[in-house]
Amino acid sequence: MRAAVMRDRRIVVDEIPAPVPGPGEVLVRTLACGICGSDLHTLKHAHALVEGSRNSGGSFEMDLSRDIVMGHEFCAEILTPASSRFRAGDRVVSVPLLLRDGRALTVGYSDLVPGGYAEQMVLQEDLLIPVPNGLASDLAALTEPMAVGRHAVVMSRITPAEVPLVIGCGPVGLAVIQSLKALGMGPVIAADFSPARRAKAELLGADIVIDPATESPYASWADLAGRDASGAELPPNPLTGRKLYRNGVYFECVGVPGVIGAMMQGAERGSRIVVVGVCMESDVIEPLVGINKELNLQFVLGYTGEEFAETLQDISEGKLDVEPMITGKVDIAGVPRAFEDLADPEKHAKILVKPA
Amino acid sequence: MRAAVMRDRRIVVDEIPAPVPGPGEVLVRTLACGICGSDLHTLKHAHALVEGSRNSGGSFEMDLSRDIVMGHEFCAEILTPASSRFRAGDRVVSVPLLLRDGRALTVGYSDLVPGGYAEQMVLQEDLLIPVPNGLASDLAALTEPMAVGRHAVVMSRITPAEVPLVIGCGPVGLAVIQSLKALGMGPVIAADFSPARRAKAELLGADIVIDPATESPYASWADLAGRDASGAELPPNPLTGRKLYRNGVYFECVGVPGVIGAMMQGAERGSRIVVVGVCMESDVIEPLVGINKELNLQFVLGYTGEEFAETLQDISEGKLDVEPMITGKVDIAGVPRAFEDLADPEKHAKILVKPA
Repeated sequence: MRAAVMRDRRIVVDEIPAPVPGPGEVLVRTLACGICGSDLHTLKHAHALVEGSRNSGGSFEMDLSRDIVMGHEFCAEILTPASSRFRAGDRVVSVPLLLRDGRALTVGYSDLVPGGYAEQMVLQEDLLIPVPNGLASDLAALTEPMAVGRHAVVMSRITPAEVPLVIGCGPVGLAVIQSLKALGMGPVIAADFSPARRAKAELLGADIVIDPATESPYASWADLAGRDASGAELPPNPLTGRKLYRNGVYFECVGVPGVIGAMMQGAERGSRIVVVGVCMESDVIEPLVGINKELNLQFVLGYTGEEFAETLQDISEGKLDVEPMITGKVDIAGVPRAFEDLADPEKHAKILVKPA
Repeated sequence: MRAAVMRDRRIVVDEIPAPVPGPGEVLVRTLACGICGSDLHTLKHAHALVEGSRNSGGSFEMDLSRDIVMGHEFCAEILTPASSRFRAGDRVVSVPLLLRDGRALTVGYSDLVPGGYAEQMVLQEDLLIPVPNGLASDLAALTEPMAVGRHAVVMSRITPAEVPLVIGCGPVGLAVIQSLKALGMGPVIAADFSPARRAKAELLGADIVIDPATESPYASWADLAGRDASGAELPPNPLTGRKLYRNGVYFECVGVPGVIGAMMQGAERGSRIVVVGVCMESDVIEPLVGINKELNLQFVLGYTGEEFAETLQDISEGKLDVEPMITGKVDIAGVPRAFEDLADPEKHAKILVKPA
């Protein structure tokens, strides 16, 4: 079958053997698969990723000397069901996991099974969720990245009384913005240097959109969070004389060194910072800043099975408007070029690979 | 009056003017004042502390070109009350705060008022708490450092189902250990390279005490947290095949660069790390380790007024056994030497300054 393969730190298009389903696994035809920023990171930092994962009990176990077919944001059609629960032709999504020989493989980050940048995959039948009737496969493929946003919001423990600020409006930031709105949070402040990304953020529900090159997102946050719901300025703390703010919940959706430290500097005391962006390099922080402000840092990864299913449901009911996330569609031959194009934030949010 | 003064990065004993109480302030005689590790840090890193505080809305505002009398862990006797609420001779403790001209001063970290390494101080009357009848002043002076431990435990949101690990058994670590036990948490695992500190930790309630030079505290934690209350091994996660553990809550009570990163490496996935130690230098972390394990970092500082009052109450009722914390007592002339002695973890936990 045809696939876009990570080989020697490049993406190449080649013919590879079709996968063979093991017990409890189904063979599927890939209908649509989003290209994730983590795949771009992985192409650049694969060795660091695998080593970091190994050191920390993560699930990115890959033999990088072998072909890897990435792609973990997919919608697929069943070719050979494993049980009577499904029929050939059923459309499904799934968390990208496969339990083989008591060991979890991540579909899209494994040298043992291909991910969604290939014509066919094998998936674990008991993890499959049918695509609700009528939902387009392209939109269903957005379940995975949108579930990342929902998980980040859940892990943040944000309440409607708190004021969220989203730093970075790439696909992860956009998923966080939409999840915040879908879960009844806000007003949402969002910041990105890219005009195209700011426009997307606004379209997808951000209430205040900031260009950090001309305006401080933290000042905007303080202006909003220093007032109550009616817009009246909050009184100072009677004990310390210090200006009071509503609680801050800041989402790091950039994933490059320095951003966590800058957010700690910018955050108001008592805030929570949720690290959603995946920074694969060492980073420097000033603990004293965290201490003086009693900051909380919550690192997050992935989602639960329930969050994944709820996200699909919300997409199918129109509570999450994922159509504007999709800015390009390519076939397998177009994957290497798509990886290059995604480096430019003005061009794209999400590119879908359509292997058929 | 006589005082031990921080001047030109040294502690010197000198005569300085007695402080004059402003409106709502009382003049007190210092009965006992503990020397805090933060004072040792401050002597070494005062400029970084003041600058870091300024950058982060902290309350360490000091003009370092002027004399500073440190000391914020005190018990005192009222000389001139400000209202009928107190009488001369009443013994009190207080959070080390003074609100002057709408601005909060930290008693012990200010060039405007002296701290407890002096014969007299001024304190804000409405913050004073009477020492419960019969409690020795030396023990009441431990309220402040013990409140730091209580606050860290409260901020950790630990429940009895979770397994705490305390890294560092200096005064801060010992306060955390005692607070965990007083609040019904545990079993408590504690680790320190110093035999004397390990002995103190055991005396003050740690259930398992580890020498990190010969044994991994994280392995001990995993051995305990991998079992249920009856000691039976927990079954693996059925989805991933991964070994399961009870939740981990790790307390960083060291405060030097590298410890946060090492704890992130050692911590089990889903753990919370509470940063209680005050590291005044930049530090390096690996965000990917935090992400892969979905770690939570809670930086903490100080305590609330309620936590302070509850701590005094617990000390007076014997729920917190603070006597063994005190390993030395000096007069004002002995303060410079006490600062040097405290550098050796084998010699001391808490030295009290007795100005009288």
